[in-house]
Amino acid sequence: MSASQFDVLAVGNAIVDVLSPATDEFLEQEGIAKAAMTLIDEERATYLYSKMQPGKEASGGSAANTVAGIASMGGKAAYIGKVAADQLGEIFTHDIRAIGVSFDTPPLQDGPATARCLINVTDDAQRSMSTFLGAAALVTEEEVEHDAEKVRASEIIYLEGYLFDREEAKRGYVRAAELAAAANRLTALTLSDLFCVERHRAAFRHLVANHIDILIANEAEICALYETEDFDTAIEHARGEVGIAAVTRSEKGAVIVRGDETVAVSAEPVDELVDTTGAGDLFAAGLLLGLARGNSLAEAGRMGAIAAAEVISHYGARPEVELKRLVEQAEIEIS
Amino acid sequence: MSASQFDVLAVGNAIVDVLSPATDEFLEQEGIAKAAMTLIDEERATYLYSKMQPGKEASGGSAANTVAGIASMGGKAAYIGKVAADQLGEIFTHDIRAIGVSFDTPPLQDGPATARCLINVTDDAQRSMSTFLGAAALVTEEEVEHDAEKVRASEIIYLEGYLFDREEAKRGYVRAAELAAAANRLTALTLSDLFCVERHRAAFRHLVANHIDILIANEAEICALYETEDFDTAIEHARGEVGIAAVTRSEKGAVIVRGDETVAVSAEPVDELVDTTGAGDLFAAGLLLGLARGNSLAEAGRMGAIAAAEVISHYGARPEVELKRLVEQAEIEIS
Repeated sequence: MSASQFDVLAVGNAIVDVLSPATDEFLEQEGIAKAAMTLIDEERATYLYSKMQPGKEASGGSAANTVAGIASMGGKAAYIGKVAADQLGEIFTHDIRAIGVSFDTPPLQDGPATARCLINVTDDAQRSMSTFLGAAALVTEEEVEHDAEKVRASEIIYLEGYLFDREEAKRGYVRAAELAAAANRLTALTLSDLFCVERHRAAFRHLVANHIDILIANEAEICALYETEDFDTAIEHARGEVGIAAVTRSEKGAVIVRGDETVAVSAEPVDELVDTTGAGDLFAAGLLLGLARGNSLAEAGRMGAIAAAEVISHYGARPEVELKRLVEQAEIEIS
Repeated sequence: MSASQFDVLAVGNAIVDVLSPATDEFLEQEGIAKAAMTLIDEERATYLYSKMQPGKEASGGSAANTVAGIASMGGKAAYIGKVAADQLGEIFTHDIRAIGVSFDTPPLQDGPATARCLINVTDDAQRSMSTFLGAAALVTEEEVEHDAEKVRASEIIYLEGYLFDREEAKRGYVRAAELAAAANRLTALTLSDLFCVERHRAAFRHLVANHIDILIANEAEICALYETEDFDTAIEHARGEVGIAAVTRSEKGAVIVRGDETVAVSAEPVDELVDTTGAGDLFAAGLLLGLARGNSLAEAGRMGAIAAAEVISHYGARPEVELKRLVEQAEIEIS
């Protein structure tokens, strides 16, 4: 394994978020699944958007939020994802580069528009997401090959489960995992979403068993993956299948297992829970940077908890303060 | 004067804001005039945007923020402004309609993109704006004629000084003022910006003297308009020239004069001053709705102060809570 240029390279859906406040009645009336991500087509996107309250637009995308978090902690990160050559694509590209993430995937010239995620945030800080995937779904082997050198030069290659919703993207993932393996790099995967796991269980199981070193999920997702209602059963299954499994449990913190080791991580206290958008993405940021730098499981988990706590204390899915400072205040040393 | 369908119809620059944090050093380095609005061309917009930190996009535009405030107070408002048929134009249109403002100006099909205002917010809550006007500048007599019925059906026609930066737009303003006068409606104008007044003093003086009933400005702007350094001199000049003049003085509140009357309005206290973007726009919202509904000068001014206080307590130029409730809490009755 040669010296790495990046701590983490992530492959994911390049999405611009539209965040609007909403009521539970609105979700019910419009048939929006609460606290989940639903894929929608352009027609439904246009309809739903017309019904939503005024919003704020900001770059999002699960794995892109994660690399934003890594950069904010002082890590070196790269990203592969597809935007269109349009205004939202410009915004996404600007934002990810402005925080120092290496991003060079060529924008789509003809085809669907840049992806948009309509996020309805209810008073209980839950976000219900309706995603029009557009150009984002068109991450293929070609996009991965375009940045093959970066893949080889990254400590960890991180894949976003959401991309499994497109066959071409799945092939791109497998290609990234192969490149990573050939360069002796670690691969990480987030299961992303309960319904995403339900839609693609067999494919996920195959990928996890054959290509993944670090598995990240929440309780519901990992239980769905291993078709069990028992959390401990799911954890033990994962322990036998991947090098490291990290499972988040909202206010109960997270559990991380590696071989015989089991580490429980507490959630960091927050003054006010405003919007849970990005909580899992930012947990992954801290965890992956910690692992890339050789921190202990407990330290890496704590870094994740600190990053997650910051992002849920305000609207929006990307950090608003320098996470590096928060990690330093917790007296965790990133080597 | 027939019964009015709208309290206020506003004509202004239809702009999407990009808000990013910035340092004073950054402003100096990039030659951005602090706490002012500078017009930039597309090339400079692209350059500056590439240098800015990650941002959040939200609909803006001075007079559009004002009608958003009026709608939030329960008033009926309409808007005339030009966006392009692009993604930022869609966002602007969505947001203004979603709050119940009547907006039907046809989007520009061929030509420049929807206007973008790059707002660098420094730690002292000051905003320094660089505006690429794009399609927004193309409000002409045609756009005003398109909504002539709404102009005639509005209690107050409100014009944004910024639009004076384009000759065609100026003619549109004069047309709106003529339509208003013919229907016995009141006209209001905000001077918008110190440098805007300096650029167009003669034209502003002519418009104010001949077409405007209600003049809104801050201290610096009204002094620049009447070429005096003395605030009282400027106020007396305005008193003799317009029906009502309202001058905002930041934390000192506002002074409103009408004939012999002079009313001083205190600024509302805020817990934390976060971002002054929209302060003047929201003061205008409260003032104009109060005047349209026949509230006293003191009440209308207080409504403006309440609306301004809400908007400077968070990032962004549009209200985030229902202003109607805040006005009710202050025991002001809007008839």
